[in-house]
Amino acid sequence: MPIGIAVVGAGYWGPNLVRNLYASQDFDLRWLCDLDQERAHRVADRYSGVRVTTEFEEVLADEGVEAVAIATPASTHAPIGRAALHAGRHVLLEKPLAASTEEAAELVRLADEYGRTLMCDHTFCYTPAVQYLRDLVAGGDLGDVLFVDSVRINLGLVQPDVDVFWDLAPHDLSILDFVLPGGLRPIGVAAHGADPIGAGVACLGYLSLPLPGGAIAGVHVNWLSPTKIRHMVIGGSRRTVVWDDLNPQQRISVYDRGVDLSPMGGVSADTKRKVNVSYRLGDMHAPALPEREALMGMVTEFAAAIRENRPPLTDGRGGQRVLEVLSAASRSQQAGGAFIDMGTRPMAVAQ
Amino acid sequence: MPIGIAVVGAGYWGPNLVRNLYASQDFDLRWLCDLDQERAHRVADRYSGVRVTTEFEEVLADEGVEAVAIATPASTHAPIGRAALHAGRHVLLEKPLAASTEEAAELVRLADEYGRTLMCDHTFCYTPAVQYLRDLVAGGDLGDVLFVDSVRINLGLVQPDVDVFWDLAPHDLSILDFVLPGGLRPIGVAAHGADPIGAGVACLGYLSLPLPGGAIAGVHVNWLSPTKIRHMVIGGSRRTVVWDDLNPQQRISVYDRGVDLSPMGGVSADTKRKVNVSYRLGDMHAPALPEREALMGMVTEFAAAIRENRPPLTDGRGGQRVLEVLSAASRSQQAGGAFIDMGTRPMAVAQ
Amino acid sequence: MPIGIAVVGAGYWGPNLVRNLYASQDFDLRWLCDLDQERAHRVADRYSGVRVTTEFEEVLADEGVEAVAIATPASTHAPIGRAALHAGRHVLLEKPLAASTEEAAELVRLADEYGRTLMCDHTFCYTPAVQYLRDLVAGGDLGDVLFVDSVRINLGLVQPDVDVFWDLAPHDLSILDFVLPGGLRPIGVAAHGADPIGAGVACLGYLSLPLPGGAIAGVHVNWLSPTKIRHMVIGGSRRTVVWDDLNPQQRISVYDRGVDLSPMGGVSADTKRKVNVSYRLGDMHAPALPEREALMGMVTEFAAAIRENRPPLTDGRGGQRVLEVLSAASRSQQAGGAFIDMGTRPMAVAQ
Amino acid sequence: MPIGIAVVGAGYWGPNLVRNLYASQDFDLRWLCDLDQERAHRVADRYSGVRVTTEFEEVLADEGVEAVAIATPASTHAPIGRAALHAGRHVLLEKPLAASTEEAAELVRLADEYGRTLMCDHTFCYTPAVQYLRDLVAGGDLGDVLFVDSVRINLGLVQPDVDVFWDLAPHDLSILDFVLPGGLRPIGVAAHGADPIGAGVACLGYLSLPLPGGAIAGVHVNWLSPTKIRHMVIGGSRRTVVWDDLNPQQRISVYDRGVDLSPMGGVSADTKRKVNVSYRLGDMHAPALPEREALMGMVTEFAAAIRENRPPLTDGRGGQRVLEVLSAASRSQQAGGAFIDMGTRPMAVAQ
Repeated sequence: MPIGIAVVGAGYWGPNLVRNLYASQDFDLRWLCDLDQERAHRVADRYSGVRVTTEFEEVLADEGVEAVAIATPASTHAPIGRAALHAGRHVLLEKPLAASTEEAAELVRLADEYGRTLMCDHTFCYTPAVQYLRDLVAGGDLGDVLFVDSVRINLGLVQPDVDVFWDLAPHDLSILDFVLPGGLRPIGVAAHGADPIGAGVACLGYLSLPLPGGAIAGVHVNWLSPTKIRHMVIGGSRRTVVWDDLNPQQRISVYDRGVDLSPMGGVSADTKRKVNVSYRLGDMHAPALPEREALMGMVTEFAAAIRENRPPLTDGRGGQRVLEVLSAASRSQQAGGAFIDMGTRPMAVAQ
Repeated sequence: MPIGIAVVGAGYWGPNLVRNLYASQDFDLRWLCDLDQERAHRVADRYSGVRVTTEFEEVLADEGVEAVAIATPASTHAPIGRAALHAGRHVLLEKPLAASTEEAAELVRLADEYGRTLMCDHTFCYTPAVQYLRDLVAGGDLGDVLFVDSVRINLGLVQPDVDVFWDLAPHDLSILDFVLPGGLRPIGVAAHGADPIGAGVACLGYLSLPLPGGAIAGVHVNWLSPTKIRHMVIGGSRRTVVWDDLNPQQRISVYDRGVDLSPMGGVSADTKRKVNVSYRLGDMHAPALPEREALMGMVTEFAAAIRENRPPLTDGRGGQRVLEVLSAASRSQQAGGAFIDMGTRPMAVAQ
Repeated sequence: MPIGIAVVGAGYWGPNLVRNLYASQDFDLRWLCDLDQERAHRVADRYSGVRVTTEFEEVLADEGVEAVAIATPASTHAPIGRAALHAGRHVLLEKPLAASTEEAAELVRLADEYGRTLMCDHTFCYTPAVQYLRDLVAGGDLGDVLFVDSVRINLGLVQPDVDVFWDLAPHDLSILDFVLPGGLRPIGVAAHGADPIGAGVACLGYLSLPLPGGAIAGVHVNWLSPTKIRHMVIGGSRRTVVWDDLNPQQRISVYDRGVDLSPMGGVSADTKRKVNVSYRLGDMHAPALPEREALMGMVTEFAAAIRENRPPLTDGRGGQRVLEVLSAASRSQQAGGAFIDMGTRPMAVAQ
Repeated sequence: MPIGIAVVGAGYWGPNLVRNLYASQDFDLRWLCDLDQERAHRVADRYSGVRVTTEFEEVLADEGVEAVAIATPASTHAPIGRAALHAGRHVLLEKPLAASTEEAAELVRLADEYGRTLMCDHTFCYTPAVQYLRDLVAGGDLGDVLFVDSVRINLGLVQPDVDVFWDLAPHDLSILDFVLPGGLRPIGVAAHGADPIGAGVACLGYLSLPLPGGAIAGVHVNWLSPTKIRHMVIGGSRRTVVWDDLNPQQRISVYDRGVDLSPMGGVSADTKRKVNVSYRLGDMHAPALPEREALMGMVTEFAAAIRENRPPLTDGRGGQRVLEVLSAASRSQQAGGAFIDMGTRPMAVAQ
C-alpha cells in the first residue's frame, strides 16, 4: 500500500522530488503545492493524478496525505514542517533543515513528540560512493577514524546572501555526519574564511573540526579555484580511504597503509616518549561501484523509515548537527577565526 | 677570483653543500669542519685541497675563508653563525635559520651591523618551478594574490622531537616568503594540529594565515596520508597558477580563469551590496621548465649576493619570517587553535 | 523561412534528430516516418505539428518537405536515400552512409546529378574539441601532419553481426576525415584484428593507414579493455595536439614540441644521411572549450549547406571515404592482415 | 665462494655492470676490458682489485675468470661471446643478443654444447613491476592471455643508424618474452613504420603480433610524441592488468573485469553463432611493489643460474626470440607492411 505524499515547492529541487516520488512504488504522489500555480502546473501536468494547489491547508485537509516533502526556501522550512508535524504527517526536508539551530531543535522535538518520521534530504549520502564509505567505517575495515580531509573547490557562483561555507560545506558536513560513527560531533569549530574579491561574503575558507579521541576533520571550500576538486580522505588506524568523485573510473581507493606506533620496551626516565614507528605499505583496493540515482535511494529510505517506524539514515538530528556546525562556523568567523567550543551544545545534552 | 669558503657539518646535508661548492667556479672550498673527524674525512677526501678539522677556530683563523656554510643541528646555528659574523665572515645557514626567533633576529642584526651577507638555504626556492612562480607574481601576470593553498602530505617519518608543522611546513612557508611580494607577512596565524596516533606530537594539521588585503594562505601538512600530494595553488585577480610537483610532465599550469566583481550601476540604499559577478573561463598555459639542480642555483646566488653586496633572494630576514610563523603556529596550537596576531611582531616594526 | 523536413526512423538515434530538428529555427519538422506506428507516436506526440506515418511515399508526396533525415538501419540507407534524391530532396544520413561502397558512390553521384545536399551525420565532428582540432590543422598551427594515433577502448558490448572496427572505428575515421586537409585518403589500409574470446567477430584490433607524404595514422579499437580510453594525438611538424576526451577539464593540449631535422653542412659521399637533430621543448597550451550540444551544430550545418548550396562539412564524399577505409579494413583482415592498396580507389579518381 | 667475472666494455652500460658486480656477494669482479685503456681506468680505479686490460685474451687467460659480462656494441657480441664460450666461460650479453638471428642461434647452440650459462641482460624484466606481471600470468590469476597492448612513446633521440623499432621495441618484446608462458612466439609479424620527418629511418610505428590461440599483441613505439607514455595492458580471460610505469604511486592495476561468452542453449540451424555475452565489472587491486634496483636482481639471477646449472630467467633463447621478431619486423617494413609468417622459424623447430 503506497504512502500518500505531497510535495511543497516546485522550484529548483522540487521537480526532482516529484519525478522520483511519482516513479517510486512506495509512494502515491497526490499533490504539488506552490505559491506560483503556473509553475506548479508546468511540473505536475506531466504526471497524471497529481493535483496542484497554492494552499498548504488544502494538502493537510487530504487525509490520504501521510507525508509531506518540503523543497521551499530554508526560511520557510520551520513553519511548514511544524504545521505538517502538528497535523500528524511525516516530514522530509531539503537541506538545510531549518534557518536556525533553534528551529531545527524544535522540529526534532516535535517529530519525537508526535512519533513521526523527520528526514533531511542529504542526497549525496545515497550515492554508491558515500554508502561505501559508511559501510567501510561501520564495518571496522578502517579501524578508528584518525582524520578526515575534504576539499570541495571550483570556480563557483559567488552568491550575495550566502557565504562559501553555507553553500558548499553542507555537502561535506552531511557526508561526515553520515559516515562517522555516532554522527558529526566535533569538540569545536574554527572557521577561517576570506573575501579577497570584495564580494561581501567569504569566497573561500577552511573549517577545522577536532573530533573526540584526538582525531580531526578539515574542510576546504573555495569558489575561486580554476580547477575543480572533489576529494575526501578518511584516515583510519587500519586503512585509509580516498574518495575522488571526479574520477568515475576509480572513485574509491582503499589503502592498506598507515603508521603504527608501539611503546618501546625499557623506556628510560626521559621525559621524551619513546615509541617504535612502523609503516604498513600495503596494497590498494578500488571497489566497483554500481551506478544508480541517489535521489531514488533517498526516497526508498524515507518510505522504509516510515514503515519500520525508525529514524531514517539521514534523520532530523543529523540535519540539526550539520546546522550546528555551520552556525558555529559563522560565529568563529565573526570572532576572527576563534575556536568555538561545541562541548556544551544542547543537542548533545539532550541525547 | 673565487670566494674562500668553509662548510661546517658533515652530516645529512653537508655533503651536498660540499659537492656543489666544490663544483662551483664561484667558490674555493677550503675546509670541512665536523666534530666527527672520521665522518668529515669520508666526505672531504674525495675532493682534493679540502682540509678537515674538528675546530671551528681553525677555520676562522684562516684568512682565506671569507664565507661559512653551516649545516649543523638547528640548536647550534646561532652560536656558530654568531661567531662567524663577529669574525667578519659571510654566512649561509641551513633552515631553520635558528632555534628561536630571538636568535634569528640577533643573527639578522649582526649581519646588518657587520655588513655581511646572511643567507638561508631555502633550496626549494631555487627550483625552476618556484622561480617561475615568483616571476609570475612579480611580473604582475597573476594580478593581486587572492589566496594560496598548499598541500604537502604523504606517509612520512613520524619524528619524536619535531611536529609535522616544523618538519614539513618550512618548505611551504619559505616558498610563500619567496613568492609573495614583500615576503610572508601574515596578519595572524592559526594552527590546528592533531595527534590521533599518540605520537606525542602533531602528525597532521592545518595552518591558516590571513594576509593583508583580505587574502589568505592555507597549508595542510600530514604524515599519515597514504598518498603523496605536493600541490600549491596561488589564486590571483587576473590568473591562477597550480603547481603540482609530482607531475614532472606538467608541474606548472597557469589558468586564465577567475571571478570578477564590478559594482552595479544605480546601487540603491540597500544595505546589501550589489555587484555584477562575471567569470573568465580562459585558456590554460603550461610552461616548459628547464631541468637543473636547485642547490647549484642557491650556491650561485650566495656568491652573487656577496659580490654585489646585496641581500640574497633568500636572506636572513626571510628565514626569520618563516621562523616567526612556525613559532606562532606552536603558540596557536598550545592555545587550542587560537588565532595569534602577528601585527606587532618586532621584525615588521624594525623594517 | 524554415526548411521543411521529415525524419525517417524512430529507433535509437531518430528521437535525438527529432528533438534537435524541432528545436532548430532553421527547420520545420513535418513528419516522423517509421514502420512501427506506435513507436513513432511515442516519439512524435511530444512535439505539436509533427505528423506520423508508416509510408515513406506519404512523406515524399508532401511538397513542403524539402529535406529528409534518415536514421534507419544501414542496409536501408541506400534505397531510402536514393528515393529521396530522385524526388529532389536533400538528404541527411546516419553513419555509415550505406551498406557498401558501391551504394555510397551511387548516393554521392545522385546528389551531384540532382544538385541536392547529401550530408552524413558524423556527430562527433561537431563537438567543440574536434572543431578545435580541425581549425588547428587548417590554420597551419600544427604544420604538416606527421602522424595520428587514436585509441578508443573500453569494456564494450560485443555485437554478433558487426566487428569492433565497424562498431568503433567510424568515429576515429570520420574525425580523421574531418580534420585532415583534403579528407582521409590513406595510401593503403592494414587491419589486424583478433577474436580471442570466440565471439565470431574481431573484438579488438589495429588499423594502420599510411598517409601521403610519409605520414601514418594508427587506430586501436578494443571491446575488451577494462579501462576506458579516448585519446588521439595529431603530431605536426610545428606542434602536436593531444585530445583526451575523458578529461573534461583539459580535453585539448597543444604542445609546442617536436623534432627538427636539418641537413648537415659538408655532407660527405657516405651513403648514410647526415642530419642535425634538434628538439623543441616548448610550452603547452590548453584552450578553454565551450560547452554545447554537438547534434545541434550538425543540424545547423545541414541547413546552412542547403541554403548556401555548398557541400556540408561532413558531406557524402566524407561518408564514402570512411566507408571505403572500413571496407578495405575488412578485406585486409580476410587476407590475414595484408596491406590493401587504396591508390586506385574510384572515388579518388572521380574527383 | 664468489664467481670470478670480467666485464668487457666500459662505455654507456659497462660502468653499471661494474658497479653491481662489484657490490654483489655472488661475484668476484677481476677485470674490466676495453680497447680504450684510459676510459677503462676511469671506471675501474674506483674499485680496488679490478684490473684493466685492452686484451680480451688476457682475460681469458685468467683461470679465475669463470664468467664474462659483455657490454660492447652489438656487432661485436657474437665474436666475443663465441670466444668466451669456446673458452668454457659463462656469458652475460647486453641486448640485443647479437647483430643477426644467425649469430644469436650460434651463441645459443654453443652454450648448449659447452653446458655454459648464456644470459641476456633484459634489465627491465628484473623490475618489481615486470616480475609481478610474470607472476600474475604464471599463477593463473589472469586466465588465458587474450591480448597485450604496449605503448612506449616520447620525444626521443632520433638515431641515424637504428630505427624506432630496434631502439624502443626490444624493451616491450623482452618483457613480453618474459611474461608470456613459453615466451614470445607470435604466429607472424606485421610492422608499419613511418618516417614523416625524413630522418632516413622509421621514427614511429606499430607492430602487430598475432599469438597462438587467437590472441594478439600490439606495440606502438614513437620518437615524435610530445608526451611520454609507458603503458602496457595484458588482457586475460579472468582478469586484466594495466602497467603504467610513469605512475610510481600505482604502477600496476589488476582489474577483475572482462567479457564472458557462453553458448546459448537451443542453438538453431542458423549459421550465425548465438552466444550469451556477460560482463564482469569487478574491483581493481593495486599491489604495493617494493623499491629495488633491477640490475642487481639481474646480477643475482646470473649467479643463481650458473650455480644451479639452469637457464636464467632471461636466457639466450629469449634474446634470440626477441631478435627474430625484430628481424621479421624489418622484413615486414621492407615489404610495405606485409605479414611475415613466423610459423616455420628454425628456433621453434629446434625446441
